[in-house]
Amino acid sequence: MSHPTTSVNLSKLADAVGGRLRGADCPIFKLSTLKNAETGSLSFLVPAGTQNRSLLKTTRASALILSPALEQDCPSHISVIISDDPRLAFAKITRFFSQVSLPQAGLHPTVVVGEHAHIAASASVGAYCVIGDHVTLGENVILYPGCTIGNDSVIEANTILQARVTLYEKVRIGKHCLIQSGVVIGSDGFGFAHDKTGWVKMFHMGGVVIGSHVEIGSNTTIDRGLMEDTIIEDGVIIDNLVQIAHNVSIGARTAIAGCTGIAGSTKIGQDCMIGGAANIGGHLEIGNKVYIAATSSVGDSFSEPGLYTSVMPAKPNEVWRKNAARFLYLDKMAKRLRDLEKRLEEHFSN
Amino acid sequence: MSHPTTSVNLSKLADAVGGRLRGADCPIFKLSTLKNAETGSLSFLVPAGTQNRSLLKTTRASALILSPALEQDCPSHISVIISDDPRLAFAKITRFFSQVSLPQAGLHPTVVVGEHAHIAASASVGAYCVIGDHVTLGENVILYPGCTIGNDSVIEANTILQARVTLYEKVRIGKHCLIQSGVVIGSDGFGFAHDKTGWVKMFHMGGVVIGSHVEIGSNTTIDRGLMEDTIIEDGVIIDNLVQIAHNVSIGARTAIAGCTGIAGSTKIGQDCMIGGAANIGGHLEIGNKVYIAATSSVGDSFSEPGLYTSVMPAKPNEVWRKNAARFLYLDKMAKRLRDLEKRLEEHFSN
Amino acid sequence: MSHPTTSVNLSKLADAVGGRLRGADCPIFKLSTLKNAETGSLSFLVPAGTQNRSLLKTTRASALILSPALEQDCPSHISVIISDDPRLAFAKITRFFSQVSLPQAGLHPTVVVGEHAHIAASASVGAYCVIGDHVTLGENVILYPGCTIGNDSVIEANTILQARVTLYEKVRIGKHCLIQSGVVIGSDGFGFAHDKTGWVKMFHMGGVVIGSHVEIGSNTTIDRGLMEDTIIEDGVIIDNLVQIAHNVSIGARTAIAGCTGIAGSTKIGQDCMIGGAANIGGHLEIGNKVYIAATSSVGDSFSEPGLYTSVMPAKPNEVWRKNAARFLYLDKMAKRLRDLEKRLEEHFSN
Repeated sequence: MSHPTTSVNLSKLADAVGGRLRGADCPIFKLSTLKNAETGSLSFLVPAGTQNRSLLKTTRASALILSPALEQDCPSHISVIISDDPRLAFAKITRFFSQVSLPQAGLHPTVVVGEHAHIAASASVGAYCVIGDHVTLGENVILYPGCTIGNDSVIEANTILQARVTLYEKVRIGKHCLIQSGVVIGSDGFGFAHDKTGWVKMFHMGGVVIGSHVEIGSNTTIDRGLMEDTIIEDGVIIDNLVQIAHNVSIGARTAIAGCTGIAGSTKIGQDCMIGGAANIGGHLEIGNKVYIAATSSVGDSFSEPGLYTSVMPAKPNEVWRKNAARFLYLDKMAKRLRDLEKRLEEHFSN
Repeated sequence: MSHPTTSVNLSKLADAVGGRLRGADCPIFKLSTLKNAETGSLSFLVPAGTQNRSLLKTTRASALILSPALEQDCPSHISVIISDDPRLAFAKITRFFSQVSLPQAGLHPTVVVGEHAHIAASASVGAYCVIGDHVTLGENVILYPGCTIGNDSVIEANTILQARVTLYEKVRIGKHCLIQSGVVIGSDGFGFAHDKTGWVKMFHMGGVVIGSHVEIGSNTTIDRGLMEDTIIEDGVIIDNLVQIAHNVSIGARTAIAGCTGIAGSTKIGQDCMIGGAANIGGHLEIGNKVYIAATSSVGDSFSEPGLYTSVMPAKPNEVWRKNAARFLYLDKMAKRLRDLEKRLEEHFSN
Repeated sequence: MSHPTTSVNLSKLADAVGGRLRGADCPIFKLSTLKNAETGSLSFLVPAGTQNRSLLKTTRASALILSPALEQDCPSHISVIISDDPRLAFAKITRFFSQVSLPQAGLHPTVVVGEHAHIAASASVGAYCVIGDHVTLGENVILYPGCTIGNDSVIEANTILQARVTLYEKVRIGKHCLIQSGVVIGSDGFGFAHDKTGWVKMFHMGGVVIGSHVEIGSNTTIDRGLMEDTIIEDGVIIDNLVQIAHNVSIGARTAIAGCTGIAGSTKIGQDCMIGGAANIGGHLEIGNKVYIAATSSVGDSFSEPGLYTSVMPAKPNEVWRKNAARFLYLDKMAKRLRDLEKRLEEHFSN
């Protein structure tokens, strides 16, 4: 990583996050971890961070973002942005140090555009993108190279599709979304009936509707609905390699970590957090503020907020094996325990 | 979703599914759920659907597909297609309402074609596809934009590849298949030996052979075989983000739901159903009509038909945690139980 | 699969693997399994292979790779390469029978190249690749069609990217790597803070650094780091559909099987083996030579070498169900067992 040649004054960053500045208004060249900070670095403590507190004495950072409680532990030669939520303040500051140069407005000469497409003059469409008929791309939309947009799809203002995203026909994406590379949105749902000769495909007539401020991770797949739309509401964030099946709806601001699968027609509420590699069955209703632990398998509807889990954490093989072997005799153990209780009852009552 | 301007007469749909028509032969404009149906909608009841039976009284659908047992519950102003399998009849009818316009025959001028390729005149190859040497594309094959077809691959008649599908060299796909976007078929299997310096790659010389009437979901991956072919038989349906390793064979009409992984050299029989996010180990033999519950982990060969499972459904954290903690003492519990039994035996026998 | 027209003399293969040749120096046309071998085939026994030993009597292979212990069981009309590690010897020999024809050096006329790119004259860049600004492609690098390489990325000599690989900006890949189709490297990590209105994105300023002799499977995703780089060391092998989150580091020669997910900031040591569909939580430290069983869920740091597992293998539903039902009463069972023990203690002590 080369050292960026530009810097931002610490006071400007403090203002941007509504934090109070203690000490010198030094120029900040980069964001760093406490451990690897150097002159010109701004760093911060996560989480409340007791194990990292000792690093306050040794860090070479020029400035730190700290909660009021930690400020006094920080040597006076280090400037401090004092913030009630240092992690949030840090997140807001990352924007100043993102060095990605956005592509210019306009269509690369190799772009193939269908009939009756409406592409804003401020939109940027990269090489080898293919835009279908009746597609709308809003102001400042960016399509990186190799994206394919199906007929009748709409992408609203300020949304970015990274390289090689596929939208099928009739997919709607709102404003300020970020879709990472390799995502597929609008593929047919896995819906089939069965007759004597085999599987009979259900052609899917619904679309996919994605709200605003949604982020979707690399190679994630979202299927179109059967008769109605698959729905991702505003502010949802989805990680890499997530599978969202047909007719699913995901409520606003719900977060879904990587490798998770959500089966068909399940409705997930607002402000939920679904851990990585969790799997949620079909036709369920999950309420608001439900948290699912990573790698859990959900087979029931949960309407109440709270944490739900079926995690079995890995143990050394010799510990795990002998206990797992007993698991398959658990029913017999329960019956033997009941027998003992009965015999003792009888014995003592005589 | 705009209202389609075309309609299909109900009698035509009844004929198409071999159902008996009760009531008026009204025009059907769309398929709808019972709940959201409106004038011009055809709807149906799934499953046997006791919880939805009350909707029969209130639905605004013009027509329904019902089993003979439910017909009498349906108000007389609603037309009915009477069918022994309403879900199957519905599936067959979806075809009439799919509004996707297929691309025209011919090669887009940007298509790159290798030497000695045989492409049927009726085939359609979209923008920016790259076709290798000695490739055959059959009658009515459709490749959406951005597909890459390796040397010596064959795609038979009426098969469709959605955008950005990759076939490596020597992949064969039969007739009437549908491959969704982002699928990769024929990548190298994960086969390595180990020497003192690290991993030694096994170059894979087998191919992939896919039968007819196969459907494969978005971003699914299927590796080529080491010395022989990876095989997917006729009528298999595979959902999104499924991993099928080298030398696997999948029997006819088996269904595999999303996020499932099947490890190398495993043979799966015909008419199996593999639930979502199940994982099946390597070098196993799974018989015909074996059903694997979603999220199960299969480590043994199962020759007998039936349902196999290792599902642990998620529970509220306070319920789960205290029981999961005991799991790691299950072996000790079993021994303590045995001790108690022995002592009581001795006590009572004295 | 057509019969290759070229052959390799067995003595040449024996020399290549440092094995001793017994019998005739016959021409080898193909590598085969013992079962399906024919005249001209070279085969071998895996594993130590007691169940396949009987095939030695019936195989039609012209030659075999065998350990010294098995040589005497092999009929004298079959030539033998005697090797202490037949599987390793076989792996080394596969290279001679790989029939993939590599593309020619040079840029396809459709390649789009940014400013200040350095592309070696011996590199081959396929149709519709898009190369960003300040990109370096080393000697003999091969990019198959449809790859997108972000600004400031570097691919060192002799590395191959299969079709439709995406590298974001500032991704470094070492020498002799093989990246399969659909891989995405350098997408934003799933890092967000939370304020009253929803999620606040952390812009990711780190890159991804991949060593030499690394292989990465189809549709795998590797996110860039937040402030520092995500790191994959030399000789690591990664299977299909694996998710590697931001700031992860993977030690040299570690193998990761398909469908596995590794959450953010976790450090994995050298020479580890992670089974398929395992999931490893965030901010953990896994030592060298740790083996994780397939489908295990890792929630703790493991510093000691050895096998760790939380596998629950699938069983017939009637066996599983009754035991799983008891699991949710395990805490109560433990308490009842303790009660019985106490009562017996009291009883016998009176």
